[in-house]
Amino acid sequence: MAAAFFQAEMSVLSSTLARSYSIPFRKTLMSFSFRIAMERNPSLRIRCSRVAAFSSSPSHSRNFPVPGIEDVFVGYLFGRTKATEVAHVIQKGDIVVDATCGNGNDTLAMLKMVTDDSDGYGGHVYALDIQKDAIESTSSLLDQTLGSKEKERVKLFNICHSKMEEIVPENSRVRMVAFNLGYLPGGNKSIITVSDTTLSALKAAERVLMPGGLISLVVYIGHPGGREELDVVEAFASGLPVSDWVCCKFQMLNRPLAPVPVFMFKREK
Amino acid sequence: MAAAFFQAEMSVLSSTLARSYSIPFRKTLMSFSFRIAMERNPSLRIRCSRVAAFSSSPSHSRNFPVPGIEDVFVGYLFGRTKATEVAHVIQKGDIVVDATCGNGNDTLAMLKMVTDDSDGYGGHVYALDIQKDAIESTSSLLDQTLGSKEKERVKLFNICHSKMEEIVPENSRVRMVAFNLGYLPGGNKSIITVSDTTLSALKAAERVLMPGGLISLVVYIGHPGGREELDVVEAFASGLPVSDWVCCKFQMLNRPLAPVPVFMFKREK
Repeated sequence: MAAAFFQAEMSVLSSTLARSYSIPFRKTLMSFSFRIAMERNPSLRIRCSRVAAFSSSPSHSRNFPVPGIEDVFVGYLFGRTKATEVAHVIQKGDIVVDATCGNGNDTLAMLKMVTDDSDGYGGHVYALDIQKDAIESTSSLLDQTLGSKEKERVKLFNICHSKMEEIVPENSRVRMVAFNLGYLPGGNKSIITVSDTTLSALKAAERVLMPGGLISLVVYIGHPGGREELDVVEAFASGLPVSDWVCCKFQMLNRPLAPVPVFMFKREK
Repeated sequence: MAAAFFQAEMSVLSSTLARSYSIPFRKTLMSFSFRIAMERNPSLRIRCSRVAAFSSSPSHSRNFPVPGIEDVFVGYLFGRTKATEVAHVIQKGDIVVDATCGNGNDTLAMLKMVTDDSDGYGGHVYALDIQKDAIESTSSLLDQTLGSKEKERVKLFNICHSKMEEIVPENSRVRMVAFNLGYLPGGNKSIITVSDTTLSALKAAERVLMPGGLISLVVYIGHPGGREELDVVEAFASGLPVSDWVCCKFQMLNRPLAPVPVFMFKREK
Protein backbone atom coordinates (compact mmCIF):
# COMPACT_ATOMS: atom_id res chain seq x y z
CA MET A 1 0.00 0.00 0.00
CA ALA A 2 2.78 2.36 0.85
CA ALA A 3 4.35 1.82 -2.55
CA ALA A 4 1.28 3.28 -4.18
CA PHE A 5 1.34 6.02 -1.60
CA PHE A 6 4.85 6.97 -2.63
CA GLN A 7 4.10 6.69 -6.30
CA ALA A 8 1.10 8.95 -6.08
CA GLU A 9 3.06 11.42 -4.06
CA MET A 10 5.95 11.42 -6.45
CA SER A 11 3.74 11.76 -9.44
CA VAL A 12 1.96 14.68 -7.87
CA LEU A 13 5.14 16.34 -6.80
CA SER A 14 6.55 15.91 -10.24
CA SER A 15 3.66 17.56 -11.99
CA THR A 16 3.61 20.30 -9.42
CA LEU A 17 7.22 21.09 -9.95
CA ALA A 18 7.02 20.80 -13.70
CA ARG A 19 4.35 23.45 -13.74
CA SER A 20 5.92 25.78 -11.30
CA TYR A 21 9.32 27.30 -11.60
CA SER A 22 8.78 29.56 -8.68
CA ILE A 23 7.97 26.96 -6.12
CA PRO A 24 5.25 28.16 -3.85
CA PHE A 25 5.72 27.39 -0.25
CA ARG A 26 2.47 26.29 1.21
CA LYS A 27 1.35 24.83 4.40
CA THR A 28 1.11 21.14 3.74
CA LEU A 29 0.21 18.02 5.52
CA MET A 30 3.67 17.20 6.60
CA SER A 31 4.91 20.67 7.20
CA PHE A 32 4.36 23.22 9.79
CA SER A 33 4.06 26.77 8.67
CA PHE A 34 7.67 27.56 8.28
CA ARG A 35 6.87 30.91 6.78
CA ILE A 36 4.77 32.13 9.61
CA ALA A 37 7.02 30.64 12.21
CA MET A 38 9.99 32.35 10.67
CA GLU A 39 8.50 35.69 9.90
CA ARG A 40 7.06 36.32 13.28
CA ASN A 41 8.86 36.47 16.53
CA PRO A 42 9.80 32.86 17.22
CA SER A 43 9.38 33.38 20.91
CA LEU A 44 5.75 34.05 20.21
CA ARG A 45 4.32 30.60 19.90
CA ILE A 46 2.17 30.42 16.85
CA ARG A 47 0.10 27.39 16.46
CA CYS A 48 -0.83 27.11 12.86
CA SER A 49 -2.25 24.67 10.43
CA ARG A 50 0.08 22.18 8.91
CA VAL A 51 -2.38 21.23 6.26
CA ALA A 52 -4.52 24.13 5.23
CA ALA A 53 -3.09 24.22 1.78
CA PHE A 54 -6.35 24.78 0.06
CA SER A 55 -7.32 27.73 2.13
CA SER A 56 -4.09 29.67 2.26
CA SER A 57 -2.71 31.99 -0.33
CA PRO A 58 0.51 31.15 -2.08
CA SER A 59 3.83 32.61 -1.19
CA HIS A 60 6.44 32.31 -3.84
CA SER A 61 9.98 31.19 -3.62
CA ARG A 62 11.36 34.68 -3.50
CA ASN A 63 9.68 34.89 -0.12
CA PHE A 64 10.80 31.49 0.96
CA PRO A 65 12.25 32.02 4.38
CA VAL A 66 14.85 29.34 3.93
CA PRO A 67 15.97 29.78 0.34
CA GLY A 68 18.00 26.88 -0.89
CA ILE A 69 17.06 24.55 1.88
CA GLU A 70 14.40 22.92 -0.23
CA ASP A 71 16.98 22.03 -2.82
CA VAL A 72 19.38 20.84 -0.25
CA PHE A 73 16.90 18.49 1.24
CA VAL A 74 15.56 17.18 -1.97
CA GLY A 75 19.12 16.53 -2.98
CA TYR A 76 19.73 14.97 0.34
CA LEU A 77 16.73 12.75 0.36
CA PHE A 78 16.53 11.82 -3.27
CA GLY A 79 19.16 10.86 -5.69
CA ARG A 80 19.60 11.85 -9.26
CA THR A 81 19.68 9.21 -11.90
CA LYS A 82 22.36 10.76 -14.06
CA ALA A 83 25.36 12.96 -13.70
CA THR A 84 23.80 15.40 -16.10
CA GLU A 85 21.02 15.87 -13.62
CA VAL A 86 23.23 16.14 -10.61
CA ALA A 87 25.18 18.68 -12.58
CA HIS A 88 22.28 21.10 -12.39
CA VAL A 89 22.51 21.42 -8.64
CA ILE A 90 25.37 23.88 -9.04
CA GLN A 91 25.60 26.28 -11.92
CA LYS A 92 28.07 25.94 -14.72
CA GLY A 93 30.94 28.30 -14.14
CA ASP A 94 30.66 28.22 -10.37
CA ILE A 95 33.60 28.08 -8.06
CA VAL A 96 33.26 25.43 -5.38
CA VAL A 97 35.49 24.12 -2.63
CA ASP A 98 35.81 20.49 -1.64
CA ALA A 99 37.35 21.15 1.73
CA THR A 100 38.06 17.50 2.48
CA CYS A 101 38.58 15.79 -0.84
CA GLY A 102 39.48 12.35 0.51
CA ASN A 103 39.53 9.87 -2.35
CA GLY A 104 38.24 12.44 -4.81
CA ASN A 105 34.76 11.21 -5.56
CA ASP A 106 33.17 14.44 -4.42
CA THR A 107 35.77 16.47 -6.23
CA LEU A 108 35.02 14.71 -9.46
CA ALA A 109 31.29 15.09 -9.09
CA MET A 110 31.61 18.76 -8.20
CA LEU A 111 33.72 19.31 -11.28
CA LYS A 112 31.00 17.83 -13.44
CA MET A 113 28.59 20.28 -11.91
CA VAL A 114 30.56 23.39 -12.68
CA THR A 115 31.74 22.48 -16.16
CA ASP A 116 30.02 22.04 -19.49
CA ASP A 117 31.50 19.25 -21.57
CA SER A 118 30.06 20.59 -24.79
CA ASP A 119 31.90 23.87 -25.00
CA GLY A 120 34.59 23.60 -22.39
CA TYR A 121 32.96 26.35 -20.34
CA GLY A 122 33.27 25.86 -16.67
CA GLY A 123 34.18 26.91 -13.21
CA HIS A 124 36.68 25.49 -10.82
CA VAL A 125 36.90 23.08 -7.96
CA TYR A 126 39.38 23.80 -5.23
CA ALA A 127 40.03 20.48 -3.53
CA LEU A 128 41.93 20.30 -0.28
CA ASP A 129 43.10 17.55 2.00
CA ILE A 130 45.61 17.57 4.78
CA GLN A 131 46.69 14.02 3.93
CA LYS A 132 49.10 13.43 1.08
CA ASP A 133 47.55 10.00 0.52
CA ALA A 134 44.22 11.66 -0.12
CA ILE A 135 45.64 14.09 -2.64
CA GLU A 136 47.38 11.24 -4.45
CA SER A 137 44.23 9.19 -4.45
CA THR A 138 42.18 12.10 -5.77
CA SER A 139 44.77 12.92 -8.39
CA SER A 140 44.82 9.33 -9.54
CA LEU A 141 41.04 9.28 -9.83
CA LEU A 142 41.05 12.50 -11.84
CA ASP A 143 43.78 11.15 -14.12
CA GLN A 144 41.76 8.05 -14.82
CA THR A 145 38.59 9.96 -15.49
CA LEU A 146 39.35 13.32 -17.00
CA GLY A 147 41.03 14.79 -20.02
CA SER A 148 43.83 17.25 -19.43
CA LYS A 149 41.66 20.30 -20.04
CA GLU A 150 39.08 19.14 -17.55
CA LYS A 151 41.70 18.31 -15.01
CA GLU A 152 43.01 21.84 -15.21
CA ARG A 153 39.76 22.96 -13.69
CA VAL A 154 40.55 21.11 -10.49
CA LYS A 155 43.06 22.69 -8.18
CA LEU A 156 44.45 20.19 -5.71
CA PHE A 157 46.12 21.31 -2.52
CA ASN A 158 47.71 19.22 0.18
CA ILE A 159 46.78 21.58 2.97
CA CYS A 160 44.43 21.72 5.89
CA HIS A 161 40.84 22.77 5.16
CA SER A 162 41.31 25.69 7.51
CA LYS A 163 43.74 27.17 4.99
CA MET A 164 41.29 27.48 2.13
CA GLU A 165 41.68 31.22 1.93
CA GLU A 166 45.31 30.75 1.04
CA ILE A 167 44.45 28.97 -2.17
CA VAL A 168 41.06 30.28 -3.26
CA PRO A 169 41.76 33.49 -5.20
CA GLU A 170 40.66 36.63 -3.42
CA ASN A 171 37.20 37.91 -4.33
CA SER A 172 36.19 34.56 -5.81
CA ARG A 173 32.47 34.00 -5.69
CA VAL A 174 32.37 30.59 -4.03
CA ARG A 175 29.03 28.86 -4.47
CA MET A 176 29.63 25.99 -2.11
CA VAL A 177 32.06 24.70 0.44
CA ALA A 178 31.57 21.01 1.17
CA PHE A 179 32.95 19.18 4.16
CA ASN A 180 32.95 15.48 4.78
CA LEU A 181 34.41 15.27 8.24
CA GLY A 182 36.16 12.38 9.94
CA TYR A 183 38.91 10.20 8.50
CA LEU A 184 40.02 9.10 5.09
CA PRO A 185 38.22 5.94 3.94
CA GLY A 186 40.77 3.22 3.58
CA GLY A 187 43.37 5.43 5.20
CA ASN A 188 44.81 5.84 8.64
CA LYS A 189 41.85 6.08 10.96
CA SER A 190 43.82 7.86 13.60
CA ILE A 191 44.09 10.87 11.31
CA ILE A 192 40.80 12.68 11.63
CA THR A 193 39.53 16.15 11.18
CA VAL A 194 39.51 17.83 14.56
CA SER A 195 37.38 20.48 16.12
CA ASP A 196 39.95 23.25 16.18
CA THR A 197 40.80 23.21 12.53
CA THR A 198 37.23 22.43 11.50
CA LEU A 199 36.13 25.57 13.33
CA SER A 200 38.83 27.58 11.59
CA ALA A 201 37.77 26.06 8.28
CA LEU A 202 34.14 27.00 8.91
CA LYS A 203 35.15 30.57 9.64
CA ALA A 204 37.12 30.61 6.43
CA ALA A 205 34.18 29.13 4.52
CA GLU A 206 31.93 31.80 5.99
CA ARG A 207 34.24 34.45 4.62
CA VAL A 208 34.72 33.05 1.13
CA LEU A 209 31.12 32.02 0.46
CA MET A 210 29.04 34.18 -1.87
CA PRO A 211 25.53 35.30 -0.93
CA GLY A 212 23.20 32.53 -2.04
CA GLY A 213 25.94 30.02 -1.38
CA LEU A 214 25.96 26.99 0.84
CA ILE A 215 28.23 25.40 3.39
CA SER A 216 27.38 21.73 3.45
CA LEU A 217 28.75 19.31 6.02
CA VAL A 218 28.36 15.70 6.83
CA VAL A 219 29.45 15.17 10.39
CA TYR A 220 30.26 11.65 11.47
CA ILE A 221 29.82 10.99 15.13
CA GLY A 222 30.59 7.30 15.42
CA HIS A 223 34.32 7.73 15.98
CA PRO A 224 36.09 9.23 18.99
CA GLY A 225 35.96 13.00 18.76
CA GLY A 226 33.14 12.98 16.24
CA ARG A 227 30.50 14.15 18.64
CA GLU A 228 32.68 16.95 19.92
CA GLU A 229 33.21 18.00 16.32
CA LEU A 230 29.44 18.08 15.80
CA ASP A 231 29.12 20.27 18.89
CA VAL A 232 31.61 22.70 17.42
CA VAL A 233 29.85 22.74 14.07
CA GLU A 234 26.48 23.31 15.70
CA ALA A 235 27.81 26.04 17.94
CA PHE A 236 29.28 27.77 14.93
CA ALA A 237 26.05 27.50 12.97
CA SER A 238 24.04 28.68 15.95
CA GLY A 239 26.12 31.81 16.12
CA LEU A 240 25.55 32.90 12.54
CA PRO A 241 23.12 35.82 12.34
CA VAL A 242 19.60 34.89 11.33
CA SER A 243 19.44 37.93 9.10
CA ASP A 244 22.16 36.51 6.88
CA TRP A 245 22.15 32.76 7.37
CA VAL A 246 19.76 29.86 7.51
CA CYS A 247 21.34 27.01 9.42
CA CYS A 248 19.81 23.64 10.02
CA LYS A 249 20.54 20.03 10.71
CA PHE A 250 18.76 16.80 10.06
CA GLN A 251 19.11 14.16 12.68
CA MET A 252 18.02 10.59 13.00
CA LEU A 253 16.54 10.07 16.44
CA ASN A 254 16.70 6.31 16.83
CA ARG A 255 20.14 5.96 15.22
CA PRO A 256 22.30 7.90 17.62
CA LEU A 257 25.48 7.32 15.63
CA ALA A 258 24.08 8.16 12.21
CA PRO A 259 25.98 10.92 10.43
CA VAL A 260 24.44 14.35 10.76
CA PRO A 261 24.12 16.62 7.73
CA VAL A 262 24.38 20.29 8.57
CA PHE A 263 23.59 23.08 6.14
CA MET A 264 24.42 26.75 6.40
CA PHE A 265 22.86 28.77 3.67
CA LYS A 266 23.98 32.34 3.17
CA ARG A 267 21.03 34.48 2.24
CA GLU A 268 21.10 36.65 -0.80
CA LYS A 269 20.89 40.32 -0.01
CA MET B 1 21.67 33.94 -9.45
CA ALA B 2 20.19 31.69 -6.82
CA ALA B 3 16.79 31.94 -8.44
CA ALA B 4 18.12 30.27 -11.56
CA PHE B 5 19.88 27.78 -9.33
CA PHE B 6 16.58 26.82 -7.75
CA GLN B 7 14.75 26.74 -11.02
CA ALA B 8 17.25 24.43 -12.65
CA GLU B 9 17.18 22.18 -9.66
CA MET B 10 13.43 22.04 -9.59
CA SER B 11 13.20 21.38 -13.25
CA VAL B 12 15.68 18.57 -12.95
CA LEU B 13 13.98 17.07 -9.98
CA SER B 14 10.70 17.24 -11.72
CA SER B 15 11.85 15.38 -14.79
CA THR B 16 13.63 12.85 -12.66
CA LEU B 17 10.54 12.10 -10.70
CA ALA B 18 8.30 12.09 -13.72
CA ARG B 19 10.40 9.37 -15.26
CA SER B 20 10.79 7.28 -12.23
CA TYR B 21 8.05 5.81 -10.13
CA SER B 22 10.46 3.85 -8.07
CA ILE B 23 12.63 6.66 -6.89
CA PRO B 24 16.22 5.60 -6.89
CA PHE B 25 18.21 6.69 -3.92
CA ARG B 26 21.59 7.88 -5.01
CA LYS B 27 24.45 9.60 -3.49
CA THR B 28 24.09 13.22 -4.38
CA LEU B 29 25.85 16.42 -3.82
CA MET B 30 23.94 17.41 -0.80
CA SER B 31 23.49 14.02 0.69
CA PHE B 32 25.72 11.65 2.45
CA SER B 33 25.31 8.00 1.69
CA PHE B 34 22.34 7.31 3.80
CA ARG B 35 22.05 3.82 2.45
CA ILE B 36 25.53 2.78 3.35
CA ALA B 37 25.45 4.58 6.63
CA MET B 38 22.22 2.86 7.52
CA GLU B 39 22.95 -0.61 6.31
CA ARG B 40 26.30 -0.98 7.94
CA ASN B 41 27.09 -0.75 11.57
CA PRO B 42 26.72 2.91 12.31
CA SER B 43 29.50 2.72 14.83
CA LEU B 44 31.80 1.87 11.97
CA ARG B 45 32.53 5.24 10.51
CA ILE B 46 32.19 5.11 6.77
CA ARG B 47 33.37 8.06 4.88
CA CYS B 48 31.79 8.01 1.53
CA SER B 49 31.18 10.25 -1.39
CA ARG B 50 28.31 12.64 -1.22
CA VAL B 51 28.40 13.34 -4.87
CA ALA B 52 29.45 10.30 -6.82
CA ALA B 53 26.09 9.92 -8.42
CA PHE B 54 27.45 9.18 -11.82
CA SER B 55 29.63 6.34 -10.68
CA SER B 56 27.37 4.50 -8.31
CA SER B 57 24.75 1.95 -9.17
CA PRO B 58 21.12 2.66 -8.45
CA SER B 59 19.27 1.27 -5.53
CA HIS B 60 15.54 1.42 -5.84
CA SER B 61 12.96 2.58 -3.44
CA ARG B 62 12.16 -0.85 -2.15
CA ASN B 63 15.62 -0.76 -0.66
CA PHE B 64 15.28 2.76 0.55
CA PRO B 65 16.43 2.70 4.11
CA VAL B 66 14.08 5.43 5.18
CA PRO B 67 10.87 4.72 3.30
CA GLY B 68 8.46 7.56 3.50
CA ILE B 69 10.88 10.12 4.78
CA GLU B 70 11.48 11.48 1.34
CA ASP B 71 7.80 12.20 0.98
CA VAL B 72 7.59 13.68 4.39
CA PHE B 73 10.36 16.10 3.74
CA VAL B 74 9.27 17.05 0.32
CA GLY B 75 5.89 17.72 1.81
CA TYR B 76 7.53 19.57 4.59
CA LEU B 77 9.76 21.72 2.49
CA PHE B 78 7.55 22.35 -0.46
CA GLY B 79 3.96 23.22 -0.72
CA ARG B 80 1.37 21.98 -3.11
CA THR B 81 -0.47 24.39 -5.29
CA LYS B 82 -3.88 22.84 -4.95
CA ALA B 83 -5.86 20.82 -2.51
CA THR B 84 -6.23 18.11 -5.11
CA GLU B 85 -2.50 17.71 -5.07
CA VAL B 86 -2.16 17.81 -1.35
CA ALA B 87 -4.85 15.18 -1.32
CA HIS B 88 -2.46 12.68 -2.85
CA VAL B 89 -0.20 12.71 0.15
CA ILE B 90 -2.60 10.41 1.92
CA GLN B 91 -4.63 7.82 0.08
CA LYS B 92 -8.33 8.09 -0.43
CA GLY B 93 -10.06 5.90 2.06
CA ASP B 94 -7.40 6.23 4.71
CA ILE B 95 -8.09 6.65 8.36
CA VAL B 96 -6.14 9.47 9.96
CA VAL B 97 -6.06 11.04 13.38
CA ASP B 98 -5.72 14.73 14.06
CA ALA B 99 -4.66 14.38 17.66
CA THR B 100 -4.79 18.10 18.42
CA CYS B 101 -7.39 19.57 16.12
CA GLY B 102 -7.25 23.13 17.46
CA ASN B 103 -9.21 25.39 15.16
CA GLY B 104 -9.79 22.62 12.66
CA ASN B 105 -7.67 23.67 9.72
CA ASP B 106 -5.68 20.47 9.78
CA THR B 107 -8.78 18.41 10.28
CA LEU B 108 -10.36 19.92 7.22
CA ALA B 109 -7.28 19.42 5.07
CA MET B 110 -6.88 15.86 6.24
CA LEU B 111 -10.48 15.17 5.34
CA LYS B 112 -9.86 16.38 1.82
CA MET B 113 -6.99 13.97 1.58
CA VAL B 114 -8.92 10.90 2.53
CA THR B 115 -12.10 11.59 0.61
CA ASP B 116 -12.96 11.73 -3.04
CA ASP B 117 -15.52 14.39 -3.87
CA SER B 118 -16.50 12.79 -7.15
CA ASP B 119 -17.95 9.56 -5.84
CA GLY B 120 -18.28 10.13 -2.14
CA TYR B 121 -15.67 7.48 -1.45
CA GLY B 122 -13.54 8.25 1.51
CA GLY B 123 -11.92 7.48 4.78
CA HIS B 124 -12.28 9.14 8.10
CA VAL B 125 -10.62 11.75 10.22
CA TYR B 126 -10.70 11.32 13.95
CA ALA B 127 -10.16 14.75 15.39
CA LEU B 128 -9.46 15.24 19.07
CA ASP B 129 -8.93 18.15 21.33
CA ILE B 130 -9.02 18.41 25.08
CA GLN B 131 -10.45 21.95 24.87
CA LYS B 132 -14.13 22.41 24.27
CA ASP B 133 -13.40 25.72 22.56
CA ALA B 134 -11.25 23.92 20.03
CA ILE B 135 -13.92 21.38 19.24
CA GLU B 136 -16.48 24.13 18.81
CA SER B 137 -14.14 26.07 16.60
CA THR B 138 -13.40 23.02 14.49
CA SER B 139 -17.05 22.09 14.27
CA SER B 140 -17.91 25.59 13.17
CA LEU B 141 -15.25 25.52 10.48
CA LEU B 142 -16.50 22.17 9.21
CA ASP B 143 -20.09 23.45 9.17
CA GLN B 144 -19.08 26.42 7.09
CA THR B 145 -17.09 24.36 4.67
CA LEU B 146 -18.58 20.93 4.28
CA GLY B 147 -21.76 19.30 3.20
CA SER B 148 -23.48 17.00 5.67
CA LYS B 149 -22.17 13.84 4.01
CA GLU B 150 -18.63 15.09 4.14
CA LYS B 151 -18.98 16.18 7.69
CA GLU B 152 -20.02 12.68 8.65
CA ARG B 153 -16.54 11.55 7.77
CA VAL B 154 -15.07 13.66 10.54
CA LYS B 155 -15.44 12.33 14.04
CA LEU B 156 -14.92 15.03 16.61
CA PHE B 157 -14.07 14.21 20.19
CA ASN B 158 -13.59 16.53 23.09
CA ILE B 159 -11.00 14.33 24.77
CA CYS B 160 -7.30 14.31 25.44
CA HIS B 161 -5.04 13.10 22.63
CA SER B 162 -3.80 10.38 24.93
CA LYS B 163 -7.25 8.80 24.71
CA MET B 164 -7.27 8.22 20.98
CA GLU B 165 -7.61 4.47 21.37
CA GLU B 166 -10.96 4.99 23.05
CA ILE B 167 -12.41 6.53 19.93
CA VAL B 168 -10.55 5.03 16.99
CA PRO B 169 -12.28 1.72 16.23
CA GLU B 170 -10.23 -1.32 17.11
CA ASN B 171 -8.17 -2.76 14.25
CA SER B 172 -8.44 0.43 12.24
CA ARG B 173 -5.56 0.87 9.86
CA VAL B 174 -4.49 4.39 10.77
CA ARG B 175 -2.26 5.98 8.13
CA MET B 176 -1.25 9.01 10.09
CA VAL B 177 -1.44 10.57 13.50
CA ALA B 178 -0.67 14.28 13.44
CA PHE B 179 0.20 16.36 16.45
CA ASN B 180 0.51 20.08 16.64
CA LEU B 181 1.67 20.60 20.19
CA GLY B 182 1.41 23.64 22.40
CA TYR B 183 -1.63 25.79 22.95
CA LEU B 184 -4.74 26.70 21.02
CA PRO B 185 -4.19 29.69 18.74
CA GLY B 186 -6.40 32.49 19.95
CA GLY B 187 -7.29 30.46 23.02
CA ASN B 188 -6.11 30.33 26.58
CA LYS B 189 -2.36 30.17 26.40
CA SER B 190 -2.11 28.66 29.82
CA ILE B 191 -3.74 25.50 28.51
CA ILE B 192 -1.00 23.62 26.73
CA THR B 193 -0.28 20.08 25.82
CA VAL B 194 1.98 18.63 28.48
CA SER B 195 4.68 16.03 28.46
CA ASP B 196 2.85 13.34 30.38
CA THR B 197 -0.19 13.16 28.19
CA THR B 198 1.82 13.75 25.04
CA LEU B 199 3.91 10.73 25.92
CA SER B 200 0.77 8.69 26.52
CA ALA B 201 -0.59 9.94 23.22
CA LEU B 202 2.56 8.93 21.40
CA LYS B 203 2.36 5.46 22.88
CA ALA B 204 -1.24 5.25 21.74
CA ALA B 205 -0.28 6.50 18.29
CA GLU B 206 2.43 3.88 18.10
CA ARG B 207 -0.15 1.21 18.79
CA VAL B 208 -2.82 2.37 16.37
CA LEU B 209 -0.57 3.23 13.44
CA MET B 210 -0.47 0.87 10.49
CA PRO B 211 2.84 -0.28 8.99
CA GLY B 212 3.84 2.30 6.43
CA GLY B 213 2.11 4.94 8.51
CA LEU B 214 3.48 8.11 9.98
CA ILE B 215 3.40 9.95 13.26
CA SER B 216 4.00 13.60 12.47
CA LEU B 217 4.59 16.21 15.13
CA VAL B 218 5.33 19.86 15.23
CA VAL B 219 6.81 20.68 18.59
CA TYR B 220 6.84 24.29 19.65
CA ILE B 221 9.54 25.19 22.10
CA GLY B 222 9.06 28.92 22.54
CA HIS B 223 6.62 28.66 25.43
CA PRO B 224 7.29 27.42 28.98
CA GLY B 225 7.31 23.64 28.99
CA GLY B 226 7.81 23.41 25.25
CA ARG B 227 11.40 22.31 25.41
CA GLU B 228 10.62 19.67 28.00
CA GLU B 229 7.92 18.38 25.71
CA LEU B 230 10.42 18.15 22.86
CA ASP B 231 12.73 16.18 25.13
CA VAL B 232 9.95 13.74 25.83
CA VAL B 233 9.09 13.41 22.15
CA GLU B 234 12.72 12.86 21.23
CA ALA B 235 13.25 10.33 23.98
CA PHE B 236 10.20 8.44 22.81
CA ALA B 237 11.37 8.46 19.19
CA SER B 238 14.87 7.45 20.20
CA GLY B 239 13.48 4.40 21.92
CA LEU B 240 11.60 3.05 18.95
CA PRO B 241 13.37 0.05 17.41
CA VAL B 242 15.35 0.81 14.29
CA SER B 243 14.09 -2.39 12.72
CA ASP B 244 10.54 -1.06 12.75
CA TRP B 245 10.78 2.71 12.83
CA VAL B 246 12.61 5.54 11.16
CA CYS B 247 12.60 8.57 13.42
CA CYS B 248 14.07 11.91 12.63
CA LYS B 249 13.88 15.58 13.36
CA PHE B 250 14.73 18.71 11.48
CA GLN B 251 16.10 21.54 13.50
CA MET B 252 17.04 25.12 12.77
CA LEU B 253 20.37 25.85 14.38
CA ASN B 254 20.40 29.62 14.51
CA ARG B 255 16.76 29.96 15.50
CA PRO B 256 16.74 28.24 18.85
CA LEU B 257 13.03 28.76 19.38
CA ALA B 258 11.90 27.64 15.96
CA PRO B 259 9.36 24.81 16.04
CA VAL B 260 10.83 21.37 15.53
CA PRO B 261 9.15 18.89 13.20
CA VAL B 262 9.58 15.29 14.27
CA PHE B 263 8.66 12.32 12.12
CA MET B 264 8.27 8.71 13.12
CA PHE B 265 7.72 6.45 10.19
CA LYS B 266 6.63 2.90 10.83
CA ARG B 267 8.32 0.60 8.36
CA GLU B 268 6.34 -1.80 6.32
CA LYS B 269 7.13 -5.41 7.05
